[in-house]
Amino acid sequence: MTDVRNLFAALDAFDGHWQPHRVTSLNDYDVKVVKVLGEFVWHTHPETDELFLVLSGELTIGLREDGVEREVVLGPSDVFVVPRGVEHRPRADVETAAVLVEPQGTVNTGDAGGDLTSPLRELPPR
Amino acid sequence: MTDVRNLFAALDAFDGHWQPHRVTSLNDYDVKVVKVLGEFVWHTHPETDELFLVLSGELTIGLREDGVEREVVLGPSDVFVVPRGVEHRPRADVETAAVLVEPQGTVNTGDAGGDLTSPLRELPPR
Repeated sequence: MTDVRNLFAALDAFDGHWQPHRVTSLNDYDVKVVKVLGEFVWHTHPETDELFLVLSGELTIGLREDGVEREVVLGPSDVFVVPRGVEHRPRADVETAAVLVEPQGTVNTGDAGGDLTSPLRELPPR
Repeated sequence: MTDVRNLFAALDAFDGHWQPHRVTSLNDYDVKVVKVLGEFVWHTHPETDELFLVLSGELTIGLREDGVEREVVLGPSDVFVVPRGVEHRPRADVETAAVLVEPQGTVNTGDAGGDLTSPLRELPPR
């Protein structure tokens, strides 16, 4: 049986940026929290949509689709789903915390790889 | 392409209790917001886990599993996943707002049916 987890307590349990930590799982999906600061890499998840829910700060997501580039800006309690196959690049000019929901095994850098690729981390025991 | 939605703005767009409204979709999952007050019915979702994220208020979820009954209490930013097949009954003594994440087609009353069964509602146009 799962337990109740608080999203902000989960964020307080680790430090690094661009390092998703699992809060809980739902069927074959993971619910993760992540702290971000600075610019991520352009990447695509060809197989899945990706949900962002901002908890604090401000997250800008650059999007490239059909040759058109645009940005969406998310503040606290804003939700956005990047559709599968759409190239995107998150950026945060201030430290920002977000929830990610996506299928288990989804890699943070998608098809791009590189130094920012992070394994899914578990929260430390309480 | 989907748009940014704010969870609290979504909650402000409707009134009824125990009436899930879709905020967005993620693959074949729906992300819904719901306002609750009072006691729901005991029910089970045999086919899926169900995620609750409380936004405001306090949600108590009664759980029955293997002949043992217990309760979990969720405050704001608390997350809990009811595992598939576990009988549960949400209750709120003050008006409470929550996010639900579950596969499309999941019925709010699960296997129980009854008067509180609610179709999935769409938010009014902005």
